[in-house]
Amino acid sequence: MSLTNYVYELPMKVRDYECDIQGVVNNANYQHYLEHARHEFLLSVGISFADYHEKGIDFIVYRIEIDYKTPLRSRDEFLVRIHLKKDGIRWIFEQEIVNKATGKTCVMAKVVCVALVNGRPKDCPELMEQLHERLPEYF
Amino acid sequence: MSLTNYVYELPMKVRDYECDIQGVVNNANYQHYLEHARHEFLLSVGISFADYHEKGIDFIVYRIEIDYKTPLRSRDEFLVRIHLKKDGIRWIFEQEIVNKATGKTCVMAKVVCVALVNGRPKDCPELMEQLHERLPEYF
Amino acid sequence: MSLTNYVYELPMKVRDYECDIQGVVNNANYQHYLEHARHEFLLSVGISFADYHEKGIDFIVYRIEIDYKTPLRSRDEFLVRIHLKKDGIRWIFEQEIVNKATGKTCVMAKVVCVALVNGRPKDCPELMEQLHERLPEYF
Amino acid sequence: MSLTNYVYELPMKVRDYECDIQGVVNNANYQHYLEHARHEFLLSVGISFADYHEKGIDFIVYRIEIDYKTPLRSRDEFLVRIHLKKDGIRWIFEQEIVNKATGKTCVMAKVVCVALVNGRPKDCPELMEQLHERLPEYF
Repeated sequence: MSLTNYVYELPMKVRDYECDIQGVVNNANYQHYLEHARHEFLLSVGISFADYHEKGIDFIVYRIEIDYKTPLRSRDEFLVRIHLKKDGIRWIFEQEIVNKATGKTCVMAKVVCVALVNGRPKDCPELMEQLHERLPEYF
Repeated sequence: MSLTNYVYELPMKVRDYECDIQGVVNNANYQHYLEHARHEFLLSVGISFADYHEKGIDFIVYRIEIDYKTPLRSRDEFLVRIHLKKDGIRWIFEQEIVNKATGKTCVMAKVVCVALVNGRPKDCPELMEQLHERLPEYF
Repeated sequence: MSLTNYVYELPMKVRDYECDIQGVVNNANYQHYLEHARHEFLLSVGISFADYHEKGIDFIVYRIEIDYKTPLRSRDEFLVRIHLKKDGIRWIFEQEIVNKATGKTCVMAKVVCVALVNGRPKDCPELMEQLHERLPEYF
Repeated sequence: MSLTNYVYELPMKVRDYECDIQGVVNNANYQHYLEHARHEFLLSVGISFADYHEKGIDFIVYRIEIDYKTPLRSRDEFLVRIHLKKDGIRWIFEQEIVNKATGKTCVMAKVVCVALVNGRPKDCPELMEQLHERLPEYF
């Protein structure tokens, strides 16, 4: 199983301090990779997390599912891919981490987000508009 | 939803560096808390990750599901609870993180692990025996 | 060399995810330990980082010197000790991390802090008063 | 003060999870940046940390001094520069982190390393040779 169509791809590289005693990337760090790729994707369409936070809008993770397939190791280069869909007020990021050298899927993840406007889950049309403008073919 | 019976509970406290710009614990750090509690639980029944690693046995996370309910903040004290069941060669850790002051569930997680013996998923009766001896009433 | 008198001591324990490929605690994590102990010390005398931040006062690290003596490993318990002195507007935390089982010094550190009041280094008598009240014998 | 000659420069970018409540990169993360740049530099001259570890040689940090000048924030791009010198069996990395947009020095660091051969500090001519071959003009 892998993402056949995706809207964004971020190349990254394992840093040694992200690896643990077992010589592989520590599980929690994949979540960092996934988050960083989502934020970079949102920035690429003009959406800044920090700016939204100052406006009282926080984009939060509601649920995450991660399947660990093959581990990344010291020095590995990898790609974090994103496919995004909307389901009611929920934003569902389907994400895949692929080992660049082998093409193997390392991680498949489903990350469910919602926008909190002043602490309450809301639809946040502002965000949708920004995405529509930049990714018209996508939605 | 919360864990009504659990076999282990670890008290912990949020460290400031675990919080992010939004003033709450960064999502990936909950995974650290969950992992640390699992390892402490296993240690409490005589199972050391590091020792097993030296014997060629690695206990790895295969899949994780996390529901984020209410965030933890700077200085919060919390409890990480564990309920464990076996399903074939899979070990399923049901884990809950509870805010100690409010009693609210912060995170519900399901962590599916398998033992890799020399790189291959195996049943590892050694582990089962150690658990049986210490938790006879449990299994 | 070790701290002969200290005003605060925090017991902690290594978490597996803090160890790296070499099987020892990653260097940057000692800085986390040192920071957490400073924050807990300040909390113990009634000074909350988060509260001060909301008042426009940030207590920042200006310079750090760390000598790495003996590494901590998976499962090690340790003590973080603090000796504090004032030098002009600078707060100098002398900190030692001691392996609880062996009594060996793991890390000696000198952490120089200043209070930023609305972005500018200032003396912040508020902080001094709070310390005086709680630690009269100390200053 | 800044590094006027350096042998290596690594471009990096702040990831949101590296920032803390104060909205700036957490102090310990600069140490991660410095470490990652050293490892990438060593890799660029053919020296792999992981490979050396397997040969029983660990390159460890003995002492670190960091001066924090101006903080990095969410989304900032920066450069990590390295100047290296030898002093007896000690390797002294002088490192600077520069904000790419402003040119300002964020961090100046002096990182003293030694090679441990089977647990003992040694000169490790193997490492020197590899550096000489690749950086003949440098030594």
